[in-house]
Amino acid sequence: MALIVFLTDYGYRDPYVGVVKGVIKSINPKAEIIDLTHGIERHDIRGGALVLKTSAKYFPKGTIFLAVVDPGVGSERRAIMIKTRNYILIGPDNGLLSLLALEDGIEEVYDISESKYRLEKVSGTFHGRDIFAPIAAYASLGLPLEALGTRIDSRSIKVIEIPKPVYEKGFVEARIIYVDGFGNVLTNIHETMLGELGWKIGDRLEISKKGEKWVCEYTTSFSLVGEGEIACYISSFEYLEIGVNKGDASRVLGLRLDDEITIRKI
Amino acid sequence: MALIVFLTDYGYRDPYVGVVKGVIKSINPKAEIIDLTHGIERHDIRGGALVLKTSAKYFPKGTIFLAVVDPGVGSERRAIMIKTRNYILIGPDNGLLSLLALEDGIEEVYDISESKYRLEKVSGTFHGRDIFAPIAAYASLGLPLEALGTRIDSRSIKVIEIPKPVYEKGFVEARIIYVDGFGNVLTNIHETMLGELGWKIGDRLEISKKGEKWVCEYTTSFSLVGEGEIACYISSFEYLEIGVNKGDASRVLGLRLDDEITIRKI
Amino acid sequence: MALIVFLTDYGYRDPYVGVVKGVIKSINPKAEIIDLTHGIERHDIRGGALVLKTSAKYFPKGTIFLAVVDPGVGSERRAIMIKTRNYILIGPDNGLLSLLALEDGIEEVYDISESKYRLEKVSGTFHGRDIFAPIAAYASLGLPLEALGTRIDSRSIKVIEIPKPVYEKGFVEARIIYVDGFGNVLTNIHETMLGELGWKIGDRLEISKKGEKWVCEYTTSFSLVGEGEIACYISSFEYLEIGVNKGDASRVLGLRLDDEITIRKI
Repeated sequence: MALIVFLTDYGYRDPYVGVVKGVIKSINPKAEIIDLTHGIERHDIRGGALVLKTSAKYFPKGTIFLAVVDPGVGSERRAIMIKTRNYILIGPDNGLLSLLALEDGIEEVYDISESKYRLEKVSGTFHGRDIFAPIAAYASLGLPLEALGTRIDSRSIKVIEIPKPVYEKGFVEARIIYVDGFGNVLTNIHETMLGELGWKIGDRLEISKKGEKWVCEYTTSFSLVGEGEIACYISSFEYLEIGVNKGDASRVLGLRLDDEITIRKI
Repeated sequence: MALIVFLTDYGYRDPYVGVVKGVIKSINPKAEIIDLTHGIERHDIRGGALVLKTSAKYFPKGTIFLAVVDPGVGSERRAIMIKTRNYILIGPDNGLLSLLALEDGIEEVYDISESKYRLEKVSGTFHGRDIFAPIAAYASLGLPLEALGTRIDSRSIKVIEIPKPVYEKGFVEARIIYVDGFGNVLTNIHETMLGELGWKIGDRLEISKKGEKWVCEYTTSFSLVGEGEIACYISSFEYLEIGVNKGDASRVLGLRLDDEITIRKI
Repeated sequence: MALIVFLTDYGYRDPYVGVVKGVIKSINPKAEIIDLTHGIERHDIRGGALVLKTSAKYFPKGTIFLAVVDPGVGSERRAIMIKTRNYILIGPDNGLLSLLALEDGIEEVYDISESKYRLEKVSGTFHGRDIFAPIAAYASLGLPLEALGTRIDSRSIKVIEIPKPVYEKGFVEARIIYVDGFGNVLTNIHETMLGELGWKIGDRLEISKKGEKWVCEYTTSFSLVGEGEIACYISSFEYLEIGVNKGDASRVLGLRLDDEITIRKI
């Protein structure tokens, strides 16, 4: 029995998450649903895409990812289902599924916008309930995917990208791609880039943003620097992260989503 | 096996939601519990009642709704269980269950305040754990409802009402009955009233509140007006909603729960 | 099949809670996981320990408690598993598990820092995912505990304490040990101390903090005093709590975690 993993920007105040689960359980009473998070920043498609990409490998093969960050609900954007090597992804065609799909390897893509398995009445504002949930439920029952939608060209889906850092003359120009609830600040420097950078544990790095500068240690965990001090380390999601031991790096350094910074070894 | 759907104003900071689930699982290890939401505004009985009423139909027949928004816990208010046509509702007798009960059709009502299936020790402040949870668990095991409480007159339960809009001389006097986490503003104009109003998709509406006026399009989704513009549409919960494309209508229009507004077609 | 009960300070914005569940389900697809809460104040080890201690008895014998409030992740602190009389506790050796362990009775303690059942790659910042989750999953499969870690002296674990109130000359010097999401303020006066204090329902108490004084009724529920009035009562977690009927005691009295107050009967 496939697991359904559920990610949205619906938040926790309203019944939206619960109602989606009701639709799924009405179709497949044995479905098991796990919340990945519903705390994605409202309309932050790239944040949702990044979370899907970095989290998916911790779930079993065959998992169905039901993901909804969908500012264009009710407009022309398509509803899609992607079969990747290990998973089935269901959500809006706005790039949300694209980072994970490309990483895992796309096998087939279906347009489910007009699927006959949608709820009878489809609202203009809640496709999570009316389209994505029933399709996920029927997929979890093992229905053939071609029954659930219309096969489309996999190159037709909307793809978003994480901007790549630029490394020149000893400086890396990087960008903030995620800030977590602790205030830890994730950059776009992937661990695979470290060979090129040549940093070693214990090195000191200088971070600058528009004239402001901070110095920090390159280490393996925020807990290894003094309380209130800045640490740089490869985060659990494989990108370079800036943290403050028992503090909030986002606040201390004034760093926010999409800010550009420069890092160099000193 | 009946599903238990769980709604409260307990929030997510404290262990209250988890402890209620522990009580249920201790009695019925196979019980399956789905959170509808625990983000109901503290003590907002009408908000909770509205969420129950509009959400219930997405859950399977036989679902047990365990609902606790209970400012009067430990006072004289009764604890009740209502058998409706399709569901079993369990919670305080303060109106919380009444909108759903009346919509679905009341069959039987039980007073469970002194049920012998309560926990041995009943606190004065946490009946969710000490009374409602064990009754829901035993109901999910299939115990006859008459064993769980004392049958009472169904007309004796406390009933709340959603205020009705008034339509006169081309103006609708409406009221805000819910504001969601996105800032979408739900009015008390139910979709069944639209025939009388005679609005058509594409019409322009004028919303006024105490002299302030805004113009918006009557449409099917917030995503169909320009970014930052106001849209009116029948929400996924069947009432007229005011939204702002990629914005927060509650903030932009300064509208809050219980505000009175006037709407007319222009 | 053992239940896994999961408590952290991870919050609800990020995918951390969901990813831990993915690791567990990858190892034991039948594991059932209940969230106790993920809203523990960031790094509030004592708050987490108190919640575990007061909540555990509502869960079935055999429950596995997976708890992570872990500011020292990646440093020298050990990862441990404690077998108590009724439960298995898994988390960092920083005191988080100690209140529950001592209350329930410690039988065996294991160091799992270097367990061969950890994930292959262990990050410096996310032991919830890389160490605690897999150990909890294997424990839920019934593996012998000695296979999961190395037996250690149970007296070697870090223990924290809830400060004890001091009762002298009719005054109790107490301390605030928890403030819940409603603003109810929990003191360190346990119900077992009430015999000594000799208060009776209906008594009036005077609460003072640095010169400021409030009078309240000693009762059984906040709902039994007038709206906006202060009540003192034994909370559902067995400590004396200060609440305001339909109000926020923390705000009204300006009381916060760790504040010292004096209470006397008047």
